[in-house]
Amino acid sequence: MATGPGQVPGPPPALLTEAGIIAALTPALPGRPDVRLGIGDDGAVLRPSPGTELVVVTDALVEGTHFPAGMPARAIGHRALAVNLSDLAAMGATPRWATLALSLPAPQAAWLEDFAAGLLGLAAATGTALVGGDTVAGPLFTTVTAIGEVPAGQPAGRRGARPGDAVFVTGTPGDAVQGRLLLGSDRDDAAAQYLRSRFLYPDARLAAGRALRPLASAMLDVSDGLDQDLGRLAAASGVGLELDAGLLPLSPQLRTVAGPDAIARALTGGDDYELAFTAPAVQAAAIAAIAAAAACAITRIGTVVAGSAVRWHDGGREYPVPAGAWQHFGAGA
Amino acid sequence: MATGPGQVPGPPPALLTEAGIIAALTPALPGRPDVRLGIGDDGAVLRPSPGTELVVVTDALVEGTHFPAGMPARAIGHRALAVNLSDLAAMGATPRWATLALSLPAPQAAWLEDFAAGLLGLAAATGTALVGGDTVAGPLFTTVTAIGEVPAGQPAGRRGARPGDAVFVTGTPGDAVQGRLLLGSDRDDAAAQYLRSRFLYPDARLAAGRALRPLASAMLDVSDGLDQDLGRLAAASGVGLELDAGLLPLSPQLRTVAGPDAIARALTGGDDYELAFTAPAVQAAAIAAIAAAAACAITRIGTVVAGSAVRWHDGGREYPVPAGAWQHFGAGA
Repeated sequence: MATGPGQVPGPPPALLTEAGIIAALTPALPGRPDVRLGIGDDGAVLRPSPGTELVVVTDALVEGTHFPAGMPARAIGHRALAVNLSDLAAMGATPRWATLALSLPAPQAAWLEDFAAGLLGLAAATGTALVGGDTVAGPLFTTVTAIGEVPAGQPAGRRGARPGDAVFVTGTPGDAVQGRLLLGSDRDDAAAQYLRSRFLYPDARLAAGRALRPLASAMLDVSDGLDQDLGRLAAASGVGLELDAGLLPLSPQLRTVAGPDAIARALTGGDDYELAFTAPAVQAAAIAAIAAAAACAITRIGTVVAGSAVRWHDGGREYPVPAGAWQHFGAGA
Repeated sequence: MATGPGQVPGPPPALLTEAGIIAALTPALPGRPDVRLGIGDDGAVLRPSPGTELVVVTDALVEGTHFPAGMPARAIGHRALAVNLSDLAAMGATPRWATLALSLPAPQAAWLEDFAAGLLGLAAATGTALVGGDTVAGPLFTTVTAIGEVPAGQPAGRRGARPGDAVFVTGTPGDAVQGRLLLGSDRDDAAAQYLRSRFLYPDARLAAGRALRPLASAMLDVSDGLDQDLGRLAAASGVGLELDAGLLPLSPQLRTVAGPDAIARALTGGDDYELAFTAPAVQAAAIAAIAAAAACAITRIGTVVAGSAVRWHDGGREYPVPAGAWQHFGAGA
């Protein structure tokens, strides 16, 4: 709260101790049979399900690099977990457990309450148990490690795309970067609100990822921009891609706000946390059924080809991807 | 290298890209059957051993909080993993896999090579596979999450101490904090070298922890000072402790350098990464055998009592623990 002239500022809010921080982040949840020991010992003791393999992902967020200073604490808590859940979604895994390392310069109760609400709310919604962590004094950053499970022996990863496969993307990429660009704006119509919320509260495509895993030949999540991430999929699989910018699923809100830049936002914007994947074209009907069941648009945007080139077309002509690809907040051109 | 007058400075060392950082941290190791997919996809896919439970630990290190600026990169890499292995040791777990989040302000090849040598050297020595991670631009910090395995159903943690149990500690606590205090000193005799090395390259007590697990009623690792950590064990178990400072296993090097402060170093110094534990007194012979097998001193320093007070004695009188307990580098009094 700003203190105007004539107002007497109250005492500064009390800083939390390490024990206070841990208490705020320890959810009062009913016991889970897969968590034998949770927060409070040197380590958590967990029971993996028989017949499964573990999927382990780690993503760190640093203030000023991955999110702007002053972002709402609830959104930071949500994002700290969501970016990891998105990696689990890309592996087709079911989230089970997570740990959090949280570094705070000045831990204040109200901030931490919001942060915990964002993180623990998403954890509860996705069946993820926060089982341990570390709180330290330092610059604002989070590192979450999430552990999921997949049925043993199923294919996974980004290396299996084959020439002839179709290329798909979930959702409407480009919204998040446009939402970030609107953070400092006072534009407040429905489109702006929607886009900001897509940046602040990304949704990991867990249900779609789990259902797509047995069908997809390669899959990854779109965190650094669709063009750059599809380039990684192509390189890992040793294939090329022919992609149609005209097929990109652009949200009406993005079209409204970005106008002629909408395609560029979708191709080079980051922080979408959608899934991009390849699958044999014969799976199109099954994929459409998955889209309906997961309530998540899935759009074909191209074809896997031999070679190593990733080319975008629009209306029959080559579409040059704009330079200055997204490199997370603050690091881009 | 310092550049004196008349010397022409060379070009600044080139900064590594994210791909270069990942390459430096990806060990060229033979495949392991428990790692189906390692670094290079959105997540690692791991195969837990049948009949085991997982132990998951996370520790973050921030420059200026947990280690001083300018500490050798090799020591930082070693420590990033070692502090986590110490938590696994306290749980009696066998380390299997780890992930690393590494934030660097200006990633330089020589620094990263040393960091990787420290981390990957310790990983190889302990059978820990680095299976994934995240590299970001930001202040210098590391977060390692390590996953180990324990036989299913064994007791673990710090909550089982019972009145009458004996209290033990491994190794010679106090060395590490004295080594840290010597970091800026030009004292370079054998004692100083030994103590500095105990701070820079802590050894997790993995073999001892694994062997002690079935015997110990409660166990934790000593990272914040023996007095403070034993206080946590007592609180978690709902017991008191009567402890004899005269029994503390002080190294000759610590006695030489710290003189009359040696006991205070052992009680309130941090970063020891020894194990403190309780066990029924009848286990003394078995514990002596474990000490011999693990090549690690284990010393009885007291007894668990009813109540909640943790009291130190020396020669029959109460020994007041000095104030200003260790709160990691830079945060203490």
